[in-house]
Amino acid sequence: MLPRTIDWVDGRIVMVDQTALPQVRVVPAASVDELVDAIRRLVVRGAPALGVAGALGVALAVRTLTGPALYAAIDRLAAARPTAVNLAVGVRRARAALPGGPDAVLAAALAVRDEDIAACRAIGARGADLLAELCGPGPLRLHTHCNAGALACVEWGTALGVVRSLHEAGRVAYVVADETRPLLQGSRITAVELTETGVPHRVVVDGAGPSIIARGLVDAVVVGADRVAANGDTANKIGTYPLALAAARAGIPFLVACPESTVDPATPDGGAIVVEERAAEEVLVVGGTRTAPAASEAWNPAFDVTPADLVTAVVTERRVWRPAP
Amino acid sequence: MLPRTIDWVDGRIVMVDQTALPQVRVVPAASVDELVDAIRRLVVRGAPALGVAGALGVALAVRTLTGPALYAAIDRLAAARPTAVNLAVGVRRARAALPGGPDAVLAAALAVRDEDIAACRAIGARGADLLAELCGPGPLRLHTHCNAGALACVEWGTALGVVRSLHEAGRVAYVVADETRPLLQGSRITAVELTETGVPHRVVVDGAGPSIIARGLVDAVVVGADRVAANGDTANKIGTYPLALAAARAGIPFLVACPESTVDPATPDGGAIVVEERAAEEVLVVGGTRTAPAASEAWNPAFDVTPADLVTAVVTERRVWRPAP
Repeated sequence: MLPRTIDWVDGRIVMVDQTALPQVRVVPAASVDELVDAIRRLVVRGAPALGVAGALGVALAVRTLTGPALYAAIDRLAAARPTAVNLAVGVRRARAALPGGPDAVLAAALAVRDEDIAACRAIGARGADLLAELCGPGPLRLHTHCNAGALACVEWGTALGVVRSLHEAGRVAYVVADETRPLLQGSRITAVELTETGVPHRVVVDGAGPSIIARGLVDAVVVGADRVAANGDTANKIGTYPLALAAARAGIPFLVACPESTVDPATPDGGAIVVEERAAEEVLVVGGTRTAPAASEAWNPAFDVTPADLVTAVVTERRVWRPAP
Repeated sequence: MLPRTIDWVDGRIVMVDQTALPQVRVVPAASVDELVDAIRRLVVRGAPALGVAGALGVALAVRTLTGPALYAAIDRLAAARPTAVNLAVGVRRARAALPGGPDAVLAAALAVRDEDIAACRAIGARGADLLAELCGPGPLRLHTHCNAGALACVEWGTALGVVRSLHEAGRVAYVVADETRPLLQGSRITAVELTETGVPHRVVVDGAGPSIIARGLVDAVVVGADRVAANGDTANKIGTYPLALAAARAGIPFLVACPESTVDPATPDGGAIVVEERAAEEVLVVGGTRTAPAASEAWNPAFDVTPADLVTAVVTERRVWRPAP
């Protein structure tokens, strides 16, 4: 059983060090500076976990600092990863409780943590029920991509929350986990979660997923999301779209499991999502060795967009949404 | 410009050492034992290149050995990689010329080499013409998977032969090359060929290919084949099928380029093709480091089967075949 990804224990923050995976090692942060360092080094990652880190970080700051030093620390924390919206949101929620004193701030921060836990449990239960409806009660063979698990949240996870809820009821035969190049979150993180939870699983290269589905070895695909547009188009880690294509052709469900906050009404459709392009070295350097010639270039889009017509359902803590026309 | 993958120079076999890629290094084999060692260590690989190696190996043997020693050497050569059908076929063709003496054997072996060169040129020209017909004459943006190039043949290549024929006519804008996990033939071999040929290219992780096609960045997909069934179902390196799915959805051509000998009338359809399962370590160990927990398992199918209805055309040295119903 995995410890919580991030938690508050004896006046300190404790985190699973995600840079040490597949070894599971819990490290503390006793000051805001230690926490900022941990966030920058990706000791803690994943949008929901960063939201909790931001909130708990303010609780940490208010115990040891006052006046301008306190506000400066809070600003450093909110800016530790500029593109992580949830981090700033978590900071803001705890900071709003500052007038009530340290206990009020801690209560606000723990509420952020507990809401994440409750949302993941609700997503898991709802997704498990939906899969029973779509695939029947028998032990299911599930396929996932990247890591939408406990280690991106506080515990339980979103896509892996659905897996856990099914597993708790003895209804998982096995999980196929794409390794998820270039950063290998599937083998480095998802496989750790499945091992710790006791779920039988097989890691596959990303190119193998679609044909494994075509060969009838998978009953349903369950993935997380970076952003879901208002029409149901879903941005998720690069390599998600091929699974959706394969699932549609095979006639099996393709489920997106995410918190309601991931659904963005301000994004009308996938065309409005700018695809982040990351460093070429993530593709061209494998295990410290350059694999392609020095002159070769790479494209390294961080995510892809699965059109709504390939999405069987988006499952959140509040609803099951079937966006397909 | 790449040297020939395998050739006969001054009474010896010379080969591009494919274990040294992306460095291009030519190594000799002056005896059958040296050649057998090179075949076993994958210094030379690819079905057509192995056929030529087998034939030239017999020519090498007959220059230095006689009687039982000669026949024993030929048997060792034919068995150097038991599953490589072309190797044994090449050996057999040269061996049939033994009664004519060393010069006849060498002539038979050089004929195997020259036929491969001619076949690749014909495939390249035919594929280039077909793409002009399907996509228009403008510089094309092509997508390929694994390595179906000069380094799997003697020169020119099959899928990359089509790219070279187009490039010679100034009609290639760029090539997108999937890295092709687990063995990275795309970045290690195809990127080398494209660099040496002066073709602009971008290496991408396998999971990125389908969405790059969906984003309108590719005009046509061209891949090789391990085996094409009588109905057009095509077995090729794992990760080919997702490109075919994406090409079909995007409405762009998906071409299979291979020698006629790859089309197997004895295989009625893809269901008759047994998918080779390779070692789990190829997936779970990246750059010498185990990425998943010790208890994690893997599936590592070596190829996938693309159904004929997704194949726009199979291009061989003899014909353009459109198997789709």
